[in-house]
Amino acid sequence: MNRSSQKEQTEKIQRILLAHGSGGKAMHQLIKTTIGPLAGVEVFNDSAVVDLTDFNGKQIAFTTDSYVVSPIFFPGGDIGSLAVNGTVNDLSMVGAKPLYLSLGLIIEEGFPMELLTRVLDSVKEASARAGVRVVTGDTKVVNKGSGDGIFINTAGIGVVDKNLNLSPMNVMPGDVIIVSGDIGNHGVAVMAERNGLSFEPPVMSDTRPLNGLVEIMLEHTRAIHVMRDPTRGGLATTLKEIALESGVCIEIEEEKLPISEQVKGACELLGLDPLYVANEGILVAFVQKDMSKSLLEVMRSHDAGRNANIIGDVKASPSGKVLLKTKLGGTRLVEMLPGEQLPRIC
Amino acid sequence: MNRSSQKEQTEKIQRILLAHGSGGKAMHQLIKTTIGPLAGVEVFNDSAVVDLTDFNGKQIAFTTDSYVVSPIFFPGGDIGSLAVNGTVNDLSMVGAKPLYLSLGLIIEEGFPMELLTRVLDSVKEASARAGVRVVTGDTKVVNKGSGDGIFINTAGIGVVDKNLNLSPMNVMPGDVIIVSGDIGNHGVAVMAERNGLSFEPPVMSDTRPLNGLVEIMLEHTRAIHVMRDPTRGGLATTLKEIALESGVCIEIEEEKLPISEQVKGACELLGLDPLYVANEGILVAFVQKDMSKSLLEVMRSHDAGRNANIIGDVKASPSGKVLLKTKLGGTRLVEMLPGEQLPRIC
Repeated sequence: MNRSSQKEQTEKIQRILLAHGSGGKAMHQLIKTTIGPLAGVEVFNDSAVVDLTDFNGKQIAFTTDSYVVSPIFFPGGDIGSLAVNGTVNDLSMVGAKPLYLSLGLIIEEGFPMELLTRVLDSVKEASARAGVRVVTGDTKVVNKGSGDGIFINTAGIGVVDKNLNLSPMNVMPGDVIIVSGDIGNHGVAVMAERNGLSFEPPVMSDTRPLNGLVEIMLEHTRAIHVMRDPTRGGLATTLKEIALESGVCIEIEEEKLPISEQVKGACELLGLDPLYVANEGILVAFVQKDMSKSLLEVMRSHDAGRNANIIGDVKASPSGKVLLKTKLGGTRLVEMLPGEQLPRIC
Repeated sequence: MNRSSQKEQTEKIQRILLAHGSGGKAMHQLIKTTIGPLAGVEVFNDSAVVDLTDFNGKQIAFTTDSYVVSPIFFPGGDIGSLAVNGTVNDLSMVGAKPLYLSLGLIIEEGFPMELLTRVLDSVKEASARAGVRVVTGDTKVVNKGSGDGIFINTAGIGVVDKNLNLSPMNVMPGDVIIVSGDIGNHGVAVMAERNGLSFEPPVMSDTRPLNGLVEIMLEHTRAIHVMRDPTRGGLATTLKEIALESGVCIEIEEEKLPISEQVKGACELLGLDPLYVANEGILVAFVQKDMSKSLLEVMRSHDAGRNANIIGDVKASPSGKVLLKTKLGGTRLVEMLPGEQLPRIC
């Protein structure tokens, strides 16, 4: 073998090939040597069988999300940590304790093995941080030009107390609305990376697992009526969803919204409204008024809730509306994100 | 609005837009009017909470698969039915009763709404046929050129008896190997469609749910040691996997392999070895010899097992090998699919 074909050979094994998705030898080797160990699983079976005896009498929560974020690496995270945290958080929002994840990879032919390794490392690290286990997975490869590097699907299962029922149906006039942290970080971090902008200090994605925070919140009080993580569409869209589903009116105050100066500045620069910018590490909780102050203290005692704040409350009418009281004393009607402000943000 | 912009407008709402994946209003409408009802779910929550009280003391099986098949419609099925049946079958192979599915869609901008509707109809029909429910989902849209029409991820959960343990570790010399039906149909159907070939009568994909068949098999005997559905990589790759994992030698007879004349002919034409062609509606079972004849009868009584056949048995050595006794009396060593015979077959 001459030097150039050696180089080609080296190049070849460092990229994903169609054969890696064919179900045959190349795929088995990839799973055995790379995906399995790096994602933190020993055997990558088609189906995992898990024992939930310790959780007898609980209900099962089940969720799925695909991640197509572009670019796949951004300040504060990457598609791997995002895929783990996002699914952990979806489970957490119904009050479930997340336990097991699946990992479905759709990789474009030619994707560098080194980047796959970094993404899988990140999956492993994020799983360990959230205390969940990747127990089953799948790898598909599509031809060059039929994908975009890597897409990841994670599904997740967790266990929920039978007597816990978090739902917009529980929301009542008088409820207090708490946001667990600064808004807008994830969307701004990804948009900045996509557009080659850098801020000093950089705006970091807030991607993080919220199960620890949710656990201490539910230990403190069961007077929480509903929780949501305002991801795509931002806080505005999430609040509007809850207003519509519960038939109440939500009133929030602009000056109570936790938001960093950097994100504020970046949003002005990028022409974004932070209320519509995606978040990946905060939640909004609707809680009975008499428990709201103490819950806020509990939340602020947790790293993921340090910047938690009460941002408004619930009125009986006008039903299905979200009202924003601006700093200047006006009132603005908040609607869902109308179009495609931030495609492929997660 | 003049006629041409009206037409544009009509055209616009009939295709998937980036806004459909943005988390905002367009996405909510798409889910509410199209994805939710068509996929057969009323509320498309981020997380579903399911009650498994009826299955107290059982274990949970959990699996995931992404589907990137090209083309998305082929004789006998489409990406929608494939995604449901594939995940139902992965659960069935560990002896689980499949109950709930998640549905993750990654759609390319510009994908015709009419095709999405057809795919979702197919998801609904296949779910009804298999007796499973789609309870949670996710929709992402990627820019034109960053995907290929539609990719689907389904994850699934089911329940398994605690005392049921299907594993290659149980396979023993003397075990008899049964295949539940004709091999090669799915791969040939997709390849024919992809290459614009048509056979008369057409070769149809065998995509179908196997949970019904598995149920009567396990009712009949618990002497089944392991089951697998030989999908990507075909029967050869699956048998080689089992030989390696169990450390036994697998001996099969070419003339016992159920295969239709059409698939045989098509494989010759396309230059494919049917042993390596993907299947989506058959299983291979390793069973204790004394139960094999009666199990075969039971399988043949079921629509999905009509063409079941005993194809060989298990020897102690040489360990990890698969031997094929050819019709001409020779013996051939069977290895895993070495390369990329059939990319994007599922």
